[in-house]
Amino acid sequence: MRLNEYLKKITAADERAMAESQKKWDSIAKPLRSLGRLEEMVIKLAGIEKSCDVPPRKKAVLIFCADNGIVEEKVTQSESNVTAIVAENFTRGIATVNSLAYECGADVFPIDIGIAKDMDCGGIINRKIAYGTKNFAREPAMTREQAENAIIAGIELVKQKKDEGYNLIITGEMGIGNTSTSSAVLSALESVPPEMITGRGAGLTSEGVKHKAEVIKNAVKLHSPNKDDVIDVLSKVGGFDICGMAGAFIGGAVYHIPVIIDGLISSVAALCAVRLEPLCRDYIFASHCSAEPAGRIALDAVGLKAYLECGMCLGEGTGGVIGAKLFDFALAAYNETAYFSQANVEQYKLLK
Amino acid sequence: MRLNEYLKKITAADERAMAESQKKWDSIAKPLRSLGRLEEMVIKLAGIEKSCDVPPRKKAVLIFCADNGIVEEKVTQSESNVTAIVAENFTRGIATVNSLAYECGADVFPIDIGIAKDMDCGGIINRKIAYGTKNFAREPAMTREQAENAIIAGIELVKQKKDEGYNLIITGEMGIGNTSTSSAVLSALESVPPEMITGRGAGLTSEGVKHKAEVIKNAVKLHSPNKDDVIDVLSKVGGFDICGMAGAFIGGAVYHIPVIIDGLISSVAALCAVRLEPLCRDYIFASHCSAEPAGRIALDAVGLKAYLECGMCLGEGTGGVIGAKLFDFALAAYNETAYFSQANVEQYKLLK
Repeated sequence: MRLNEYLKKITAADERAMAESQKKWDSIAKPLRSLGRLEEMVIKLAGIEKSCDVPPRKKAVLIFCADNGIVEEKVTQSESNVTAIVAENFTRGIATVNSLAYECGADVFPIDIGIAKDMDCGGIINRKIAYGTKNFAREPAMTREQAENAIIAGIELVKQKKDEGYNLIITGEMGIGNTSTSSAVLSALESVPPEMITGRGAGLTSEGVKHKAEVIKNAVKLHSPNKDDVIDVLSKVGGFDICGMAGAFIGGAVYHIPVIIDGLISSVAALCAVRLEPLCRDYIFASHCSAEPAGRIALDAVGLKAYLECGMCLGEGTGGVIGAKLFDFALAAYNETAYFSQANVEQYKLLK
Repeated sequence: MRLNEYLKKITAADERAMAESQKKWDSIAKPLRSLGRLEEMVIKLAGIEKSCDVPPRKKAVLIFCADNGIVEEKVTQSESNVTAIVAENFTRGIATVNSLAYECGADVFPIDIGIAKDMDCGGIINRKIAYGTKNFAREPAMTREQAENAIIAGIELVKQKKDEGYNLIITGEMGIGNTSTSSAVLSALESVPPEMITGRGAGLTSEGVKHKAEVIKNAVKLHSPNKDDVIDVLSKVGGFDICGMAGAFIGGAVYHIPVIIDGLISSVAALCAVRLEPLCRDYIFASHCSAEPAGRIALDAVGLKAYLECGMCLGEGTGGVIGAKLFDFALAAYNETAYFSQANVEQYKLLK
């Protein structure tokens, strides 16, 4: 199926199920609406799944790994080969996201969507589009077709995880250079000057950040991507990981699975999905707000608010995994707490 | 031991252990400082426990339950008897905090520190100071001695939980009328007009909130508590639950146990502890920011920042329990992730 056909399948969340879910919350023995955004979280899930019965979550972290040609421009502290090393570390269970996912009860699925070398370690899903993108300081990062194919890979992966019984997807990424691509895409889509949204990534000097912003600014000027054409923006200054994650968000909306944003790169991918089809927002949840300067701008552009303010900027899906645990808490309250009728307390009234 | 003797025992957190803990973080294979406030959380724990080896947490939720005479002034939607009913529900495992604590792996300990009736249901720790406070619209809520005894009860309970092997305390409360006492105490300590920090509690009308603010304003005027004398403020317009929780925070500092703030009432109790001995802050952690209008003001006064922005205002320790889970995540990253030396990645450099 082509991307446009997927986009046409997307419908809004189910209002009736959402209303029923609020009604259920209001019958649980606690001050009305006192769980605030956790109540809204479950109500949104009810809308996605078209039922006020919202079961516990089986969680999958999809980590899209890809290399970025822009690294040639010295916009990072690390070399490109770190992408493959860390991707392999995901399969060995020794990366930060592995520790956190274990704590959260989530399964980790690294995906090679464009790592610069062949991955022969096993345990990595192979959806490689190419051996990294081109250096977008000189030429478009990828073709339109590659961008669409990477997005479709993300959509298909969500379908596959749904078929395997997962009902909560957490997005993550690994790709040296991907705060540069994300800032470039965000700058193009939101018409924000790159210097406002360029950060240290995994550890640049202040001088390095200046250079990185300059590289992004020149590249956006060189390609003048059309902000109303997301595929144009992604193909010119994006990355395969951003495309794959955008696909995951679209897949969530197509297959009625909630998908969680992690940090900056993931937020930018969510923004791409929402720009391609605004109804995607009904299926997307924020988790934390990245400490990268572009983090809050990207989330605001998506139109979602973070639950966690932990000053994190690690990537890999680490913030998303912590956010996923909030779903367990919200559902524990929703499914395991007594109703007023069982708690010997007269039902509270909702007063204005 | 008298309160002053406890306060004298409090020392600052251990700087050396904190420095060693940061060094350990910097050797873990991830971008330096990229776990942000989660790194700081573990470093603070290291300082509390005087060691950079920070083991997993055994968690206890101490729920201080007490009645408030001010309820006579019609400042609440519910009747006072709901305090005892919900306290009993904690022992039956059917309240919201029970569901969340189970999800978090925390044990729940309800404490009768001043419920208006005798609790014969079992499973409630009896530290009753009196059968509720007096109506502070007419007379002081309690004597100075009662306030001190309630605080000491909190200190002793932390000691007891430490002896039982717990190394993380979450504070919670249940007491109809306790947003009124909290707003009154906060108003007195911070010289903030009550109308700025009076909220709907468990469901007042806008008219009701106006009346509640008026009651608090008049009471603070009547008693003119001395803001530099925390015991004066607590005895005149406080509650036994606030005193007990203040004691828990002090106990954390005395016995080197981290103690987590829940919502508004708990934040006000933490503020009392910090005003009695500023070093207490080294042992206190915020969790979420309450949706009550006074929530952020109280946390700011304590000098701590929330990790969670979930718009909750339930009480019982519910937000604190969710916050406690962040400790598990932070410690999983700290204790279970590979070092650079194991991860085939060159150690990142901290650059300015």
